[in-house]
Amino acid sequence: MKIYDWHIAPNPRRLHIFLHEKQIEVSLEEVGQADLTLSPDFKERYPHAMVPMLELDDGTCIGEVMAICRFFEDLNPEPSLFGKNAKERALIAMWENRANEEGMLAASELFRNTHPAFADRGLPGAPAAIPQIPELQIRAKARLDRFFNKLNQQLETSQFLAGPRFSVADITALCAVDFAKWSKVEVPEDHPHLLRWYAEVRSRPSAKA
Amino acid sequence: MKIYDWHIAPNPRRLHIFLHEKQIEVSLEEVGQADLTLSPDFKERYPHAMVPMLELDDGTCIGEVMAICRFFEDLNPEPSLFGKNAKERALIAMWENRANEEGMLAASELFRNTHPAFADRGLPGAPAAIPQIPELQIRAKARLDRFFNKLNQQLETSQFLAGPRFSVADITALCAVDFAKWSKVEVPEDHPHLLRWYAEVRSRPSAKA
Repeated sequence: MKIYDWHIAPNPRRLHIFLHEKQIEVSLEEVGQADLTLSPDFKERYPHAMVPMLELDDGTCIGEVMAICRFFEDLNPEPSLFGKNAKERALIAMWENRANEEGMLAASELFRNTHPAFADRGLPGAPAAIPQIPELQIRAKARLDRFFNKLNQQLETSQFLAGPRFSVADITALCAVDFAKWSKVEVPEDHPHLLRWYAEVRSRPSAKA
Repeated sequence: MKIYDWHIAPNPRRLHIFLHEKQIEVSLEEVGQADLTLSPDFKERYPHAMVPMLELDDGTCIGEVMAICRFFEDLNPEPSLFGKNAKERALIAMWENRANEEGMLAASELFRNTHPAFADRGLPGAPAAIPQIPELQIRAKARLDRFFNKLNQQLETSQFLAGPRFSVADITALCAVDFAKWSKVEVPEDHPHLLRWYAEVRSRPSAKA
């Protein structure tokens, strides 16, 4: 099997951290280019044109980062990053989804609707031109404000995002917080619980994977 | 346990279909109101202010519809709607995520940025006012075009969205197609494979749950 990768991009980073935490090694092929586009060969092979993508030895293409992570969790259950019982799994899935929809997608919206290299790529994976919408900058910042508030509240009483153990919810939230920094949006100083968690998760060796 | 419900809304519908397919009965409490807002009592109990929400007997609140569905799949594995082996589960998770991010979120973006009742609620679950962005109408329609094209291509060679068996990916995609209709966006007639699938899944008894 092989992972098609764009090493600097936020969604591939979720997978790198996951694999490092699980101590799984998979061969990687870099398909990101210096001009911040994906290689034409990759887009031809995989018209969804998003990374990461896992190609199995039988040719099956598995996209969407959490689908890939779940595949590896099935093959290598320990250490569990999706939870060990029904309730734990549900809470991790809930916070992971929230970190994605309210964090990652907001940071992506902000970056893609402001960065000059994405002038006609306001959405990921688009085969056609999708112009930027400058008004989304304000909305995306409001989304990130809400996201930071939610995280700070949750982390006041919870060591990690979905409970006492590190999970995929923390991976997605960490990548979202760091992705927001690409657009110069930082965690506000009056969010002590979020900052405590952020210092903790970013100092794990996996955060540099 | 109890589900806080808004019976007409698209995300609760994903859960209704899922529970009907699994033949699981759970007591429901309606928290949607005639003015298309959620009841103040519910928002106080659950500040994320989104439906559906599953409250367990120990008071645990599980939000995010796929987290709730996974919880019930864990408790009642048959019939499986998330897949029976690692590869099947990954493909279902991939297509479900795609149906959500490229279908449901696009239909939601279109509806929330056009309907007068959502003038200051351009995003779900917002405690603060999020004004509509009319330009998102064009973008959301382009997103739905892409989504319909992807589905039509996939369904040319696949009976259901993620393979030969009905799964949560079909549930999310069906709800996305129907949600788009709220904004008068229909599957184009030159998408025969998507239309074949749509006729099939909407005629299942669960589609009326």
